Amino acid sequence: MQLTRAADYAVRVMIHLATLPVGTRMSRANLAVAAEVPTHFLSKVLQVLARARLIVAHRGTSGGFSLAVPAETISVLTVVEAVEGPLQLNVCVTNGPGCGRQGWCPAHMVWLEAQAALSQVLKNASIAKLANQSGASHQEKVVYPWN
Amino acid sequence: MQLTRAADYAVRVMIHLATLPVGTRMSRANLAVAAEVPTHFLSKVLQVLARARLIVAHRGTSGGFSLAVPAETISVLTVVEAVEGPLQLNVCVTNGPGCGRQGWCPAHMVWLEAQAALSQVLKNASIAKLANQSGASHQEKVVYPWN
Repeated sequence: MQLTRAADYAVRVMIHLATLPVGTRMSRANLAVAAEVPTHFLSKVLQVLARARLIVAHRGTSGGFSLAVPAETISVLTVVEAVEGPLQLNVCVTNGPGCGRQGWCPAHMVWLEAQAALSQVLKNASIAKLANQSGASHQEKVVYPWN
Repeated sequence: MQLTRAADYAVRVMIHLATLPVGTRMSRANLAVAAEVPTHFLSKVLQVLARARLIVAHRGTSGGFSLAVPAETISVLTVVEAVEGPLQLNVCVTNGPGCGRQGWCPAHMVWLEAQAALSQVLKNASIAKLANQSGASHQEKVVYPWN
């Protein structure tokens, strides 16, 4: 029961983009360094985030990546679900047709309650708030090897 | 971020054993039917639970499996951790040496909080309580094909 590496990276990338002035575009290479995400993995993560309309990929020489929507409207849950799909702590906890044991299995209610608790924490954590906490202190420390 | 099948099965097996009168031994075949766990998977689950000293395997003709400790002292968290290892929602959330980003990564606190919330729900769910909820209603319905 562990977050995927892709979702972990995606959250870091989103927080980093949210620390930048609105409209700023950041190259993939700079994002990899700033968010400490392996370059070979980053492309896939950016693709998923773009497909979920959380970021925009701008082409051309002044291209790069920027947030597609205000960071205030994005929660950690949104980012995690964009990468992993709807939160589902156990196979029986689903909005679709559940498992046949729901009627008597007492563990079912525990999984539901655990998922709700987890979901609530991730939903309350807005990317904008986290970006403010991350703050300038880290951004000033980022050293881009090519600068 | 999903519970492993083994942990899901282990919780069902423990709940079922807790519904039985103290000291009752149940064969692997009967447990597979009652807890609706695939037989080929059950052996591994029982082995893990026995190694964690949550159940006892009795040999011989009157052998079978029984709880090793009172169900009141076992939580869903105990069972899940016996199978999956200590709860660790993200690789950075650990009791050992954490990741190098802890100092500035604002997501770290979110993962910690989410893990605490999840852990609390699973800790509060005692196997004895769940066995009481599962109750006779299901047990009466179990049909063992060989009886």
